[in-house]
Amino acid sequence: MNAPDDIAAINALRASFATAWNAGDVKALAALRMPDAVAMPNHQPTASGLPAIEAADTAFFAQMTAKMELMSDEVRTTGSWGFDRGRYKMTITPKAGGAPMTDEGRYIVVLEKGADGRWRLSRDIDNSTTPMPMPPPPPPDAAKGAAAKKGIK
Amino acid sequence: MNAPDDIAAINALRASFATAWNAGDVKALAALRMPDAVAMPNHQPTASGLPAIEAADTAFFAQMTAKMELMSDEVRTTGSWGFDRGRYKMTITPKAGGAPMTDEGRYIVVLEKGADGRWRLSRDIDNSTTPMPMPPPPPPDAAKGAAAKKGIK
Repeated sequence: MNAPDDIAAINALRASFATAWNAGDVKALAALRMPDAVAMPNHQPTASGLPAIEAADTAFFAQMTAKMELMSDEVRTTGSWGFDRGRYKMTITPKAGGAPMTDEGRYIVVLEKGADGRWRLSRDIDNSTTPMPMPPPPPPDAAKGAAAKKGIK
Repeated sequence: MNAPDDIAAINALRASFATAWNAGDVKALAALRMPDAVAMPNHQPTASGLPAIEAADTAFFAQMTAKMELMSDEVRTTGSWGFDRGRYKMTITPKAGGAPMTDEGRYIVVLEKGADGRWRLSRDIDNSTTPMPMPPPPPPDAAKGAAAKKGIK
């Protein structure tokens, strides 16, 4: 449990992931994941399996340059499973132009040690600590309906 | 690994969590978590340890009635650690009045079996599959600045 070699390998894996991400290198990212990996990025659909994840990453990096920093808060392992929990800071810039968008949040990555002894990402999920933006105001008809429900005339 | 008794206990834990959540029962929720639990709800701050989680839950349920459904996609255990990964549907209704808000998304919960043989939530994170609402338009001055950067006059 929490063998130093496993922890070190997972720390190196996280660094490789950030490097590949910041390079927009979809193939390098895929090589760091288990074949049956499941990626669950916030406000995006679930991608199950490497082909689906590669397709989603390819679509994302076609539109965006992303700069991400990962800061782990804990890594725990037991046998061939483990998890990494931490925080991210990210800046996304549309390649077509426009203002960069920044976000901060957290992640949990479930890790698996393959038969080859290598640790890879198995499941990942992230979310934001930035307050949710308010949705745009409803169209005039809907607003009238809501006002009517509250008894506002 | 994946012992049937452990899987059954975790399925029961999930059901108890949903029941306590839907009742807004902060004490019952706390009893299902490890003392050093960490909760990371989307677009909210991290709550570390039971007192912080109870305070956040108390503040939330003072304002909201919440109805949540949890649908697990997989449960894996190894020794005294495991994880549950799945989906949620949630409806939140402000107690002060106003339209209910609905959301759908996913979760990963890291679980731990205590010295007493009981499984409890150790780490939890969720995120949404609903597209991110666009942030409100920037104030006029900021918009002018962005237009200037793009060379728009």
